[in-house]
Parts: sequence; C-alpha cells; structure tokens
Amino acid sequence: MADIYAQEIHPKHSYAPIIQDGLEVPETAIQLDDSPTGPNEPFRVYRTRGPYAEPEVGLPGLRSDWITGRGDVEVIEGRRRNLLDDGTRAAKRGAASEEWRGATRPVLRAKEGKRVTQMHYARQGIITEEMKFVALREHCDPEKVRVAVASGRAIIPNNVNHPESEPMIIGNQFLTKINANIGNSAVTSSIREEVDKLRWATRWGADTVMDLSTGNDIHTTREWILRNSPVPIGTVPIYQALEKVNGIAEDLTWEIFRDTVIEQAEQGVDYMTVHAGVRLPFVPLTANRVTGIVSRGGSIMAGWCLAHHKESFLYENFDELCEIFAQYDVAFSLGDGLRPGSVADANDPAQFAELKTIGELCKRAWEYDVQVMIEGPGHVPLNMIQVNNEKEEQWCGGAPFYTLGPLVTDIAPGYDHITSAIGAAHIAMGGTAMLCYVTPKEHLGLPNKDDVKTGVITYKLAAHAADVAKGHPGARDWDDAMSKARFEFRWHDQFALSLDPDTAQSFHDETLPAEPAKTAHFCSMCGPKFCSMRISQDIRDEFGDRLADLGIPEIPADVAAVSANDAIAGEQEMAEEFREQGSQVYLKEQSQ
Amino acid sequence: MADIYAQEIHPKHSYAPIIQDGLEVPETAIQLDDSPTGPNEPFRVYRTRGPYAEPEVGLPGLRSDWITGRGDVEVIEGRRRNLLDDGTRAAKRGAASEEWRGATRPVLRAKEGKRVTQMHYARQGIITEEMKFVALREHCDPEKVRVAVASGRAIIPNNVNHPESEPMIIGNQFLTKINANIGNSAVTSSIREEVDKLRWATRWGADTVMDLSTGNDIHTTREWILRNSPVPIGTVPIYQALEKVNGIAEDLTWEIFRDTVIEQAEQGVDYMTVHAGVRLPFVPLTANRVTGIVSRGGSIMAGWCLAHHKESFLYENFDELCEIFAQYDVAFSLGDGLRPGSVADANDPAQFAELKTIGELCKRAWEYDVQVMIEGPGHVPLNMIQVNNEKEEQWCGGAPFYTLGPLVTDIAPGYDHITSAIGAAHIAMGGTAMLCYVTPKEHLGLPNKDDVKTGVITYKLAAHAADVAKGHPGARDWDDAMSKARFEFRWHDQFALSLDPDTAQSFHDETLPAEPAKTAHFCSMCGPKFCSMRISQDIRDEFGDRLADLGIPEIPADVAAVSANDAIAGEQEMAEEFREQGSQVYLKEQSQ
Repeated sequence: MADIYAQEIHPKHSYAPIIQDGLEVPETAIQLDDSPTGPNEPFRVYRTRGPYAEPEVGLPGLRSDWITGRGDVEVIEGRRRNLLDDGTRAAKRGAASEEWRGATRPVLRAKEGKRVTQMHYARQGIITEEMKFVALREHCDPEKVRVAVASGRAIIPNNVNHPESEPMIIGNQFLTKINANIGNSAVTSSIREEVDKLRWATRWGADTVMDLSTGNDIHTTREWILRNSPVPIGTVPIYQALEKVNGIAEDLTWEIFRDTVIEQAEQGVDYMTVHAGVRLPFVPLTANRVTGIVSRGGSIMAGWCLAHHKESFLYENFDELCEIFAQYDVAFSLGDGLRPGSVADANDPAQFAELKTIGELCKRAWEYDVQVMIEGPGHVPLNMIQVNNEKEEQWCGGAPFYTLGPLVTDIAPGYDHITSAIGAAHIAMGGTAMLCYVTPKEHLGLPNKDDVKTGVITYKLAAHAADVAKGHPGARDWDDAMSKARFEFRWHDQFALSLDPDTAQSFHDETLPAEPAKTAHFCSMCGPKFCSMRISQDIRDEFGDRLADLGIPEIPADVAAVSANDAIAGEQEMAEEFREQGSQVYLKEQSQ
Repeated sequence: MADIYAQEIHPKHSYAPIIQDGLEVPETAIQLDDSPTGPNEPFRVYRTRGPYAEPEVGLPGLRSDWITGRGDVEVIEGRRRNLLDDGTRAAKRGAASEEWRGATRPVLRAKEGKRVTQMHYARQGIITEEMKFVALREHCDPEKVRVAVASGRAIIPNNVNHPESEPMIIGNQFLTKINANIGNSAVTSSIREEVDKLRWATRWGADTVMDLSTGNDIHTTREWILRNSPVPIGTVPIYQALEKVNGIAEDLTWEIFRDTVIEQAEQGVDYMTVHAGVRLPFVPLTANRVTGIVSRGGSIMAGWCLAHHKESFLYENFDELCEIFAQYDVAFSLGDGLRPGSVADANDPAQFAELKTIGELCKRAWEYDVQVMIEGPGHVPLNMIQVNNEKEEQWCGGAPFYTLGPLVTDIAPGYDHITSAIGAAHIAMGGTAMLCYVTPKEHLGLPNKDDVKTGVITYKLAAHAADVAKGHPGARDWDDAMSKARFEFRWHDQFALSLDPDTAQSFHDETLPAEPAKTAHFCSMCGPKFCSMRISQDIRDEFGDRLADLGIPEIPADVAAVSANDAIAGEQEMAEEFREQGSQVYLKEQSQ
C-alpha cells in the first residue's frame, strides 16, 4: 500500500522507512545503477510518506496513541458545526457541495489547566514521540530537537486533532522547509480540486500546506484536506471569519474570530496566521506606499482599525488567543500584514514597526508555551534581504522565520516563482527556516495543478541550494550523487535523482527518445562524435596512471589559499552564526 | 518597417528611438493608461531594434560608414571559403545545405600597422560613434564609456565585419547584459531553425548571442546568423576547428585553429571564446574531480595537451592571436575551460589556477589594445559565489566578468534555468557584467524555441534584479511603474510592462478570460467580493484626509534607523565598491 505512493514518482524510488524505537519514519530510497568501479548504495532522501489512502477515506491516525497516551487531553463535544461555516450557499442548500463522508475523529482538547504543546513538553525536559520522529527524519540527536523546541528556535506544528500528520520540524538548524498554498476562491475551484492539489503538492515535496480558501465550503474543504494530509496544515482564520460577515471587514468582531479559531483548532489546523501586529498606529505608515497593504489579512485588519478607530482586536485579545492555542497545540504564524508588495516599499517603517511588534507578541506566546513562527516578506531587492533575517533574529528571539519569497523584482509576472526563488534561496542561506512557495500564476490568477508542481519543485531547489550553502550535513551528498551519475552517463539515475524525474526524462527524450540513448556515453548537446564528459573520462582512463609522471603542478600560493579558505569559510560562518545563536553547530554535532 | 518588430511584442509597445547627434538609438516606448490622478508618460525601456529585415536579405550596415570613415581599414580579398568549412557533407554535396543568398560584404581588415579596436580608439582619447551610441543607450556620459573601454573595465564587441550590430557595452558600471547560446549539433537542427532562434532570442531581449554550432554547415549557419544579427555574435572557434579534423582532438594544430579564427573574423564574429588558460600543468588537477572537465573547449585542449605532452598551442601562440584580433576588433572571451561542472568541484585549485592564468593573458591582450572579457563558472554553491567576483577583479584587472549561471545545486535537471538564475542574480549583484543564460534543457537536450525564450526571460529578470540591487540609476523605475499599474488595477499596463506580456496575459485570462476582468478592480486571487488592494485603496481614499488627525505614530527609534539605513546602505556599498575599483560612482554621475 505504502509502496504504491512512492513508486508513483519513479520506478527507481521505493518507500524505505527508518524503523527504530517503535517508530516508522518515512524515507525514500533511490536505486542506483552500478558505477564502472562497482555497485552504488541506494541514495536515501527525506520525503513524506504521503497521502497513500483513498481521498474519501482519509489517512490513519499515526499520532493518535501518542496524543492520548500522554493523558493530558480529553474528548470534548466541541463546537457544533454551523452550516454557515461553509457559506450562505451551503446554508441554503442544507449541506456543503460535497460533505465529508469519511470517519470523523473525536474532538480533543487539553484537560483543564494543561498545556499540550510540544514546546511545553520540551521545556519539561520531555522528549516526545514527535521529537524522536523528527530527530530520525533529520538524522540528529533527539535532545537537539528538544532544546530547539524548548527555546523557541524551532517548532513542530502538530495539533492534537490532526493525528494524521507525520511530525516535521521548522527551524534554521534543520533542513529548510517549504510550504505550498492551496485553497479555493470565490471565482473558482471545487473541494475535489483542492484535495487533489494537496496530494499533488505533498507528492512533489511540500513540507506543509496552507489552505487559504476564501470561497464557498470553507469548513468542509478543510475537513477533506486535514483528513488526507500527512503534512501540517496552516490557515488564515480571518479569511473564514470575513466570509461569516459577508466580506465586510468592519463587521468583524473578536467573538466571531475566536469562534472561527476554535472551529479550526477542533478540526486539526496545525498553525494559524494571525496578523496581530497590524496595529492602529501603523496603518498611516502605509498611506504613501507604492502598493499600500497587499496582505489580505493585513488589509482586513487595517480597514477594521480605521473604521472603528480602535486598536486591533487581535492585538488586544492576544493572551486569550494564546490560551486557546495552548489547548490544542496550534502554532502561531505571526503574519506580516504590512509586508511590502513592491520592491519600492521594502524594509520601510511600516514593515519593521510591525516586525518589532510581532517579536513582542512572540515572547508573550512563549509565556504560554505556544509555538511560534514569524512571517516575512514579500518583495525585497536582493541587497536588502539579509537585514530581514538579522532583525527577525534580534527582535523575535530567534523564532523560525517563514518568508514568502521574497521577490527580487516586480517586472516579471508569469515568472514570479523564479523572481521569488532567487530571494528565497538568498534569505534561507541567511537563516530563514521555511519558504512559502510562489507559483507562476502569482499576481495573475489561481494556480492550477501544474502551477502547484512548478512552485513546489522551484522551492525545493531553492531550499536545497540554501542547505548546501549553509553546509547542512548531508545536503551536498545529493548533488554529488547526481553529478557522479552525470559523469558516468547513468541517465536513468540522473532522472531518478532529479527533483522532478518526469520532466528530466521527458526533456531528454525530446531530443533522443530511443532507449539506447539512455545508456549511451553521449547526449544531444554534443552528439556522439564529440563529448567533453567522455573526453574527460578518457583522460582519466588513459592518462590516469601517468599523472604522477606529469608531476604535481606548482599552484601559485594565492590560488591554493583561496580554494582552501573557501571551503573552510563556509563552515566558519555557520559556526559563528550558531555560536551567536547560542546553539550547537550542526556541522560537528550531526556528522555521526 | 521598424515598427513592425516592436509592435510584435505587444500592441502598447512602439519603436521610439533616441535621435541625437545624427544617431538613431533604439528604445521601446510602452504606452500606459491613465492613473486616477492623471495621465502617465510612456515608459521607455532599453531594447534592441531587432532583426526587422527578411532573414534571406539580412540587416543594413548600421555601422558601415563609421567603420570606413575612420580610414584605418582596407578591403582585402580574404581567405577563400573552403567547402570543408561546412563539413564533409557540404564538401561532397558541393554546397552547404542552404547557401546564403543575401548580399555579401567586402572583407575589411586593419591597414598595415593599424589597430581598429574600440579600446585602441578609447586609449587615444577618441570617442567613437559606437561609444556615443552606447552612451545614449545607457543614459550616461560618452566620456564615461570611453574611460571604461580604455581601462579595460568594459568592452564594446564590434567586429569591423559585422556592421549590422547595434553597439552595446559590457561592464559592471552599465546595465547587466545577458547572452543566449544557440547553434546546431551533430544530432539535430537546421540553418533556418538557428536563424529563427537568433531572432527569437533578440526579440525577448538577448544582448549578445553565441553560435555554438558543432554539426554540419557551421560556416554557412554563421553567415546567416551574422547577416541577420543586430547584437554581437560570439563563437568558440575550437568547435569548428575540431570539425575540420573530424573530431579528433589530437589532430588539432595551431595552423588549423588560426585559419578558423581568421575565417570567423572575416565573417564578422564579435567575440571569441579561447581556452588559452587550460595549461598542461593544470590538467592533472582535474583528475580527482567529481565531474572532471565539463567545458567542451577545455576538454579538447586538455586532451590535446596530454596526447602530445606539450603546452597548449593557444597559450603558446597567444600573442599572434592578439595581433589577429586587433586587426578586426574581435574581443576575447577568455574561456574557463576548467570551470566546475558540479558544486563539488567549485572553487578548486584547477579553476582558480586557470583564472589567474587568464588574468595574465588578459593583460597581454590589453598590450595589443584588444578588448577582453573573462568567463566564469559554472556550478557553485551560493555561499561560494562572491569570491569568484573578488578574484576575477583582483587577478584580471577588472575586465568584465561573464559567467554561466552559476548553478547553485545539481539536483534539478529540467529546472536549471532556475538553479542558475539564483546564482546569476547573486553574482551579478556582486559585480559580474554579463550572464550567459541557461535553458531548462541544460544537461538534458538541445533547447528549442520555447526553451530559448524561457532562458532569455529568466536571465532578463535575474540581470534586472541585480541592477536593482546595485542601485543602477533608473533600474527600479521599471519595478515602480509595474507596481503602480498593479495597485491601480491597470491590467493592460501590467501585461505591457512585463518582460513577457504574452505569458502574463494568458495566465491572467486562464482564470478570468472576459475583457471586463481587465478593467475590473479585482482579480481571481480573491474574487470580486474581497480584495486587499482595493481595501488598501479604499483606506487611502476614505481616510486619507483624516490620516493627519490619527497622528503620526511613534516609530521606535531602532525601527526607523533600520529602514533609513537600509536604503542608504545599498548606496554606500556600491560607492565603496566603485571607489575600490578606481571608477566613478554611477549613482552620482548618472543621476542627471
């Protein structure tokens, strides 16, 4: 059953979990052909086991026993579902357009006086099953995971009502993660399509998925998604709250918002974007911007603040929100409602005033043991990116930074997955823990299935590039496995090791479709008569044993120095960074 | 006639040359709709006038009178075309597969004892028509151009036998340029297809084009390309030389190579890649690399050196090559034959030993007043990129750096336009002057027309992102024009201002195809009921006059400081960089 999913990606892939301490931690093994010098071990990659169940049935509750086993949650009746949760059409019809018919889970909540967050356990010195699972996935010590979660430097978004999810960790000492946004809007999309996008996004490697639905059937779409999602699900509850007041921002109230948060927490949402840093006094700071407020949540709250000339109800009621989040282990994604929507507005007072406020809220949340990540921009010129990491680190106490790109130019609609991947790789190298993908449709339309895939693959490569640049243990092994396969003309291995085997193979076959071309020692770039890779191999084969006779050349001292320094410089930079952060250097720690 | 080309891109585009001092310098004007506050001036962008003639006819000789007017060239009979220049098939057939039937130009060469390079004129204090043309295109002072060319910090690749080309400049004080590679190989492609790719690449914004043909009809393909190219054409002459010895590297000789260089110089090739830095003693340094030597030119020369156990004939005869180049104004693109082909091999002794040697050759070429640019990698992790700019600057006396990407990871074949655009934007921000594009087919197959376009647009956005990051005067204006159009829902303007209007519009129309949606104040992301941009505008409209009453908020001093510093920091960094380089800061100089 499980293998079906893994094999779908490529025939050389197989589901090959790490089995240890009673845990089954998904990994994928990629079979490799032999090298001229001998056989190759399968190459193992981090990958979600994936939504291998039928969509109508949903996934098993991987974490159910862990959650109940801790004895600190109880089954509650919970908030009754209201048909209006799915919009006026559903209310009229008496049902959502496609009701969830799979099993429903009992609603869990912390027992009176308990906090059930991973941060709470970590601070008690407890290494949970979730932390052990994560440590096996990340090939690190469980104590490292616990320390990171306890200090707030990493989060494990794991609502007690979403036991289907495979634990994963977001923090800059770990692999850089990516998020894919899905969700319908008023003009398009059905529940089935969204579930399909979820499965598609996780198939290609999304580490979390946000359901940003703003149209009809919001509650039921989310139910389908949660019951089928092996990755944490994030939402922006204000979107649904706005639907409940017919899209009129002024009509929002704290009570409607809180009710929506509870509704979603009971369903199992793992993290929620809350734009509590959009304070009344900051709104005028955006008036002379080129693109004003581009965040939907931000503009809703700004509109509300101005209409009532009152401080934000999210800011005012933040402590109560923390209490709720602690009861389900919902993590905050503190939203950057005032993020720049154009390079002209980057790093302006509105953006940074909000970031500083968010940092204060982050520390308040930590008092409740609630996990937090911090959202970041947006649109930022390449030379102005790194200061975002630095201020986030300084003001938000090192909470994981989670950025949308950033896009480094505004002039390429249709290619904003690329303009943003440039910024994303750069900001992740500088310390950002999770990257929210941008699809080619950004600024133009809603992503379809192809766009979702393009966005995910683009962000996987950006995240991996950052991991390589950070010297993350093992990251470069993947590149090396690919390059060795390339040098040895192992074409099938090159496809299998690609982030997107289908595209790699179809591009190859477009020029040389015949099967023999996949074992031939040449490719279409040079053709069979001349091939630089082959010449290079010939040099090695033919002259390899004579290389000693040729003498070791005299490398100018400065050349040797640059090459040597360079390799070391990367390590040193990382070392310093982590010393500053009071953490252990993963370069040393994880080299086991 | 001229307008036909410009209008092809978008109905709002028109050919709007700068007419000054008897020069007609192409620019494109983009008509903009009115803002709510009033009409908008057309937005002007740098763009090649383009190949607006019929391919069978070729372009007029824009520079012919300038070249002959200087009185330092003479018409020569020239090397006779040999049918073997087009390969054995052409020789058997008695003709290339499609002979060039347009007008042929008389072959020009410097008169005895003369040097006809732009560098030579610049050093004599002469501001040529080419330099004036370039200054108008770049909106800077002609003297700035002259100084940059005289010092070797910039080049204007302009063979006297390619009068069709519109002068352009490559140097890091000017707009970042991009190159598109085209060319057939033994397994595929026809002459027509290559001419089509040339026109297509320049249409989308390629600043130079390299013809890397390695198959049949090399000479005649190049003739078609040169006679139709408004941009400088580069080649790698060793590719054709290798064809002349049936693909056997050992059989190459200096005489065959020199003859090929003269053949191409007489046709009008503007710059040639020469791998003269691949010296015999460096070859063993590659033996333990993961991917050995991946440059075709590099591996040919390494193979030759080892087979004969002799120093490279390119290195040995470099002075004679300089003499030839000076007679036609061919610029060197000193090739990085030992560039890394995998991130594992980045910045190793082989690469840097070659770079240092290239720097020495660069200075030799400058003694002959020959223009030079320096090729760079390749595959380099993001954190190891900047040292490449620094060493190039140090060892090569500030000659323009011209890099292939670099790719920041090896694991995404099919997406290497993106893995390389990440590195390209980064290296260009750090001082690289021209970026050689990489298409999605890199490592897999030969690019088709779609791939060429994707590669060009991807590199245009990377180059522009770097210009914005460098604070290049006027660069951000384009982003601002786009963002204003976006904020005001001027959809047609957004399409017209895009690097790729067709794709932007088709993506928009995929979700909202009806014409009214292009004037509507919403888009498919949020739908008509709720739109953050509109809310933001509403805030401005509704509360704009009350903003003063709301009071200017107290921005924490550190927030204000970061925002203010940040804008200044970019300028300061650039200022320091250019002070170090002994140049004037374009931020000040060009702000006229």
